[in-house]
Amino acid sequence: MPTEKEPLLLTPGPLTTSPETKAAMGRDWGSRDVDFIALNARIRARLLEIAGAQETHVCVPVQGSGTFAVEATVGTLLPRDGKMLVLVNGAYGRRIMKICEILGRAAEAIETPENVPNDLDALAAALDADPAITHVAAIHCETTSGLLNPIEEIAAIVAHRGRRLIIDAMSAFGALALDAREVPFEALVASSNKCLEGVPGMGYAIIRRDALEAAAGRAHSLSLDLHDQWRAMEANGQWRFTPPTHVLAAFGQALDEHAAEGGVTGRGARYRRNCEVLVEGMRALGFETLLPDALQAPIIVTFHTPADPAFDFQRFYDSLRARGYVIYPGKLTVADSFRIGCIGHLGENDMKGALKAIAETLDEMGVKDRAPARAAA
Amino acid sequence: MPTEKEPLLLTPGPLTTSPETKAAMGRDWGSRDVDFIALNARIRARLLEIAGAQETHVCVPVQGSGTFAVEATVGTLLPRDGKMLVLVNGAYGRRIMKICEILGRAAEAIETPENVPNDLDALAAALDADPAITHVAAIHCETTSGLLNPIEEIAAIVAHRGRRLIIDAMSAFGALALDAREVPFEALVASSNKCLEGVPGMGYAIIRRDALEAAAGRAHSLSLDLHDQWRAMEANGQWRFTPPTHVLAAFGQALDEHAAEGGVTGRGARYRRNCEVLVEGMRALGFETLLPDALQAPIIVTFHTPADPAFDFQRFYDSLRARGYVIYPGKLTVADSFRIGCIGHLGENDMKGALKAIAETLDEMGVKDRAPARAAA
Repeated sequence: MPTEKEPLLLTPGPLTTSPETKAAMGRDWGSRDVDFIALNARIRARLLEIAGAQETHVCVPVQGSGTFAVEATVGTLLPRDGKMLVLVNGAYGRRIMKICEILGRAAEAIETPENVPNDLDALAAALDADPAITHVAAIHCETTSGLLNPIEEIAAIVAHRGRRLIIDAMSAFGALALDAREVPFEALVASSNKCLEGVPGMGYAIIRRDALEAAAGRAHSLSLDLHDQWRAMEANGQWRFTPPTHVLAAFGQALDEHAAEGGVTGRGARYRRNCEVLVEGMRALGFETLLPDALQAPIIVTFHTPADPAFDFQRFYDSLRARGYVIYPGKLTVADSFRIGCIGHLGENDMKGALKAIAETLDEMGVKDRAPARAAA
Repeated sequence: MPTEKEPLLLTPGPLTTSPETKAAMGRDWGSRDVDFIALNARIRARLLEIAGAQETHVCVPVQGSGTFAVEATVGTLLPRDGKMLVLVNGAYGRRIMKICEILGRAAEAIETPENVPNDLDALAAALDADPAITHVAAIHCETTSGLLNPIEEIAAIVAHRGRRLIIDAMSAFGALALDAREVPFEALVASSNKCLEGVPGMGYAIIRRDALEAAAGRAHSLSLDLHDQWRAMEANGQWRFTPPTHVLAAFGQALDEHAAEGGVTGRGARYRRNCEVLVEGMRALGFETLLPDALQAPIIVTFHTPADPAFDFQRFYDSLRARGYVIYPGKLTVADSFRIGCIGHLGENDMKGALKAIAETLDEMGVKDRAPARAAA
């Protein structure tokens, strides 16, 4: 049961975690002690297993948020004289462009609107036209809108042309299938606090061993050098610099729960059901989704803001919060919209509870018409 | 009472935290929600207060370990054409040199042996001789050995010569007095999991407002750009990228406990007593400290390894651990030595318990003579 004091989080992460995951933080760990070394090894092995990457890749965790892990991966893998092609249809693709710019690495973008998947023909054409491009970066699920990009097709095109793919799988990994034995990638980046339902404080990259071996001395940063992080961890099982020990303890528990739920299949099924209940319920209330169902990932859903002048987003947010449901307090899209997440330690009854709170709130606000403004004909 | 399962940590951090600090992690927070924004503001204000820096400085937290915060501070404040002079007498001073090297910023070191404080005359002479030096970096307590550097004198010399001081106060802040109204510094860097007794996962810098305002666009990294982090946080109270929410919740509780203990004065007094009990007890057992008492900070103590061939460090470590005390499992010094910390949620009885465990372990191992090897005459 959500409460105003401890609401359920219907956000793209940090998200609601299980009581057992939070309880796992109730102990202090020596970060160089045998117990912690064993915990760390277990987590790294399990992450590789989820990615089907035990034979080919290594797992390198890094302190910080998901963006830290993305920057670390780009800085470590992209040679100073390499060139990145970024597939952009939202804030997270644009962020990789910004990282390349700050790092002084050559980069260009192929951009599609926020409700349109990455353009496969343009990708193939760009790779054929520009031999300078060494790497491609793509976002599996673009959390800006909740859109699922065609990652399998992207990977095939990149591999066929002999280039290297870096996947930002932040909000998809653990719930949407992505297996290194079927989808060729050089690196996949994600974090502890998304579909694997840990708490925030660390990210990780799953990187082809041969690529990481070749990446010594490339990074722009000491803290974010994943080659150095990996070499040190291989040597003694320890992190170079103090790890977020309690976050790792929670992550170990969260990974056990992920396995118990049936791994990616089980987790994905629950999120798909959450998403269905949410979308059906919101449509029944008169809302419209930004994306058609075929492009919707079961992670976070963007709804158009009702045109009805009685709708006020801040009142809507506050009222839902008072009823125990925290949604994302703002928008990232160009379209006038708001987002509701369907990930975390939540089930279909939680989504129904949220829908009830939304219906009550709309009545309270007197929002009769929930349809968005129509573009002028 | 320590147990083998959950030992007390006599380490330089992560350290033993209070039950209430760990319990504060038992809730999930929306990182863009009002409650979390208020928690974050309260933590930043309290850190400034501890540093006596409310009028002159701002507090910028950053995800990751202390090293992330040090690198972020150096990268943000040191202009690309600036030059850093680093006072080195251990691993943490050397690490700042390495950061400058990786960032491609000019730097030079004044190095003293690990048991000798920073050389004030050499500092003054170097600043007088080289007008290219814009910044000086110093380590308040060099955790490599446990040595206290003369930070007040260093600050006076640097200020008198119109240069800018960056203090790595990682293992001192909150227990050893350092007040911006008395000791001029441009930036001070520390982390959540040292003398303030939080859990690991974030660092922070306390930076002169005017210096940070002038630092736009200087950083080598997106994630580690403290100017951008600060501007964004000033704008809406939120972190740019997902913060370690549970770590911050624990830190908020830990800061309340620090205040309740009497702030820096109370915390420092407890640590000094822990340190006295430890050093006296170890000397009574026949051990010798690396440092004379006048140079010893009450944070972590380095003891010479006994020359007696019956002493085996791994057995010593394992036996203490089995008795519920985890010490640092290795050495950073040149001298053959080991380290025992006196910080964390520990009191004099815990130190006495550790001493009893050490005495039992030495008897068990048959170590009669605890004196170090003497250098050949």
